Amino acid sequence: MTQNQAPIRVALLGAGTVGSQTARLIVEQREELAQRIGRDIELVGVACLNPEEVDAPWIERSLLTTDTAGLCTQADIVVELIGGLEPARTFVLTALESGASVVTANKALLAKYGPELYEAARKSHVDIYFEAAVGGAIPIIRPLRESLEGDEITSILGIVNGTTNYILDEMTTKGLDFDVALHEAQEKGYAEADPTGDIEGYDAANKAAIMASLAFHTNIGIDDVSVEGITSITADDIAAATAENKVVKLLAVVEREDSGVSARVYPALISNNHPLASVHGSFNAVFVKAEATDDLMFYGRGAGGAPTAAAVVGDVTTVARHIAQSCTGPEIRLYNDLKKSPIGAAKAEFAVRFLIHDKPGVLAQVAQKFFEYGVSINGVNQDIKPTLHDPGYSGELQQLRIVTHACDELTLRKVVEEVCNLDCISGKPSILRVLH
Amino acid sequence: MTQNQAPIRVALLGAGTVGSQTARLIVEQREELAQRIGRDIELVGVACLNPEEVDAPWIERSLLTTDTAGLCTQADIVVELIGGLEPARTFVLTALESGASVVTANKALLAKYGPELYEAARKSHVDIYFEAAVGGAIPIIRPLRESLEGDEITSILGIVNGTTNYILDEMTTKGLDFDVALHEAQEKGYAEADPTGDIEGYDAANKAAIMASLAFHTNIGIDDVSVEGITSITADDIAAATAENKVVKLLAVVEREDSGVSARVYPALISNNHPLASVHGSFNAVFVKAEATDDLMFYGRGAGGAPTAAAVVGDVTTVARHIAQSCTGPEIRLYNDLKKSPIGAAKAEFAVRFLIHDKPGVLAQVAQKFFEYGVSINGVNQDIKPTLHDPGYSGELQQLRIVTHACDELTLRKVVEEVCNLDCISGKPSILRVLH
Repeated sequence: MTQNQAPIRVALLGAGTVGSQTARLIVEQREELAQRIGRDIELVGVACLNPEEVDAPWIERSLLTTDTAGLCTQADIVVELIGGLEPARTFVLTALESGASVVTANKALLAKYGPELYEAARKSHVDIYFEAAVGGAIPIIRPLRESLEGDEITSILGIVNGTTNYILDEMTTKGLDFDVALHEAQEKGYAEADPTGDIEGYDAANKAAIMASLAFHTNIGIDDVSVEGITSITADDIAAATAENKVVKLLAVVEREDSGVSARVYPALISNNHPLASVHGSFNAVFVKAEATDDLMFYGRGAGGAPTAAAVVGDVTTVARHIAQSCTGPEIRLYNDLKKSPIGAAKAEFAVRFLIHDKPGVLAQVAQKFFEYGVSINGVNQDIKPTLHDPGYSGELQQLRIVTHACDELTLRKVVEEVCNLDCISGKPSILRVLH
Repeated sequence: MTQNQAPIRVALLGAGTVGSQTARLIVEQREELAQRIGRDIELVGVACLNPEEVDAPWIERSLLTTDTAGLCTQADIVVELIGGLEPARTFVLTALESGASVVTANKALLAKYGPELYEAARKSHVDIYFEAAVGGAIPIIRPLRESLEGDEITSILGIVNGTTNYILDEMTTKGLDFDVALHEAQEKGYAEADPTGDIEGYDAANKAAIMASLAFHTNIGIDDVSVEGITSITADDIAAATAENKVVKLLAVVEREDSGVSARVYPALISNNHPLASVHGSFNAVFVKAEATDDLMFYGRGAGGAPTAAAVVGDVTTVARHIAQSCTGPEIRLYNDLKKSPIGAAKAEFAVRFLIHDKPGVLAQVAQKFFEYGVSINGVNQDIKPTLHDPGYSGELQQLRIVTHACDELTLRKVVEEVCNLDCISGKPSILRVLH
């Protein structure tokens, strides 16, 4: 124990939900953390836009500052909880270049500028840790960076966005349509006023990029991730899934295949037997397959002030130990330059749902399009939807659900586009991947 | 990158299922591991009893040796996969004292001699890592040692023995009695010829001791763990659980309560809604509750050559990085000396099943005993068991199942003992804890 040395100085950037809980854990557990680290740690400053608005009695008022850039050069560990790309990137680079280690929960920053930041940390011989950036409180980054380094990861399936999981869960249990479930989620605080980042899959895409880069030691940035959200999924899609003992989940999917590595976000049908199927509400889970390890799953709270703060303070503790020993944790080594799989190269089965006019010959027209493109149909289901109406068509609407055999995604999307050009098709189709 | 330095030397003690797979991963992935570590690693020896019996073509014959003690002082990292207390303890101490770091999967060794070994590692400024000792391939030790260090763990529930989980699963899905399911598990290789260590709960108890020590920073050894196995559980107990939408699982339970900390192994009834209920077959899972983090679950293969080896090589990779940087991972600091909760101090609900003679007044006699000890009864179920016979009683036998309200365990056990002394009781009762 070397507790008679000067305390390790920790600066917090951001005093929002996660920031104030991070401060609380550091202040309230100071003695316990000192025992665990072997060295005292001290909160030396909390940067925020409006100090007078910070409602966290455990933060000494004198620690609050608006001089964020200044704080970045006055600490041994800078904890970035501002979020977004700029000015977060500049602050993190300033900290790393001044010789401070960084702990961050900023997934967008890492998915966009990860390699630049990892290199800056390497050059300064300091750490950059980011457990809270994926899966909130779930330890997934550390297993990817360390525990699984003795094995080859082949795929990761993650439920990494609590908002969409909550919405899909409500749609499933209450039979709600997307818009209604979204509205309810917003009222309960599970979805933001502008929910785009969550429901369009961008938040999950950032996390997919981070996990893929770590799993394959290859730089996979946000622009390499193909993204589909959940906005076109209806209560009927979910009812059809339920009838087949399946659930719809928005997944971040990271894969290593013959055609290359890929990172994608899409809604998928998974069997009720799959461990991910029982991940409910705002919980997150990450399912990892590796060659020797086989299946692993990590489950826990993907968001929330205290859970996310716990992951942040876990990182602070590890980084502080490294500082006490004058060493660092594992560098993020993106030494592989694995080929990125072209979008649509991997074969998959799809469940596509169209709304069609109820008149003779429609099914034949649709089936003909699938046949023309060589997409083989595995199952068809057609029924009346008396609740739906198309202003341009006086008859009733039917719902046509087609499940394909394995086909490549680009072809499937071309078929769907051509089918949608038929006069007999109404509204927007939904496309779900079927996972086994 | 410092790959032009001498390779880090790795010695393996043991060339059984896990040892030979560990050798394979190190040999086959040597280049990849060198990239990840930033330094080459080299397998310098594999100690075993009979080199000619080792069937692992990836191990160069010249590396095989019977001089285990000698090998312990000729490596930077000694991987102990012999198992058992001695001579494993002596070899591990020899390695640590000679300045080698140790990676081990030996739960019995750590549960018995952990503090001695941690202290030896500390004195020599080397690492002792043991991810594979609990939960096989599941990263649980590293999260306990690092990820969760920013939080206070309140409880851990673990399915950490695949043999008993497989047996209970077979009993559940096929309605088998314990003996039949055990026999089947032995035939399929899921249970050993002498299954005592698994079915009596001792294997799980070692793992409970390790997890409790890490979670509470308090020395909790194997002798501090109270242990019950699954041998008295019958197909009827399981059928009764199924009828209540519950499953029976053998759990390693680690708790921090007002009365102190405890580590226990017992069979318990858990609701089908609990994430642990869907852990099937030989899979393992560990459910952790911490104050800020809330619920976490870790799931994966708890045994098997390749999965366990992957965890071992993950540790080797981390330890090698530390050697390359001349530092160590976190010391195991047992700085707390938390009071150990007296066995039976915590209150719980219990489901007790007796076999009783089918004659008037029996229920009244049994209920009277529960009343005398102040144990309140929450539910009773009584039915004929025409398949069972008591040689000392000519009538039919009935099964009496009593579910209690919360009571302390010592009292419950006294009541059960007194009830079993009644003339009208036949055979051995089963006692299951009810978890919520």
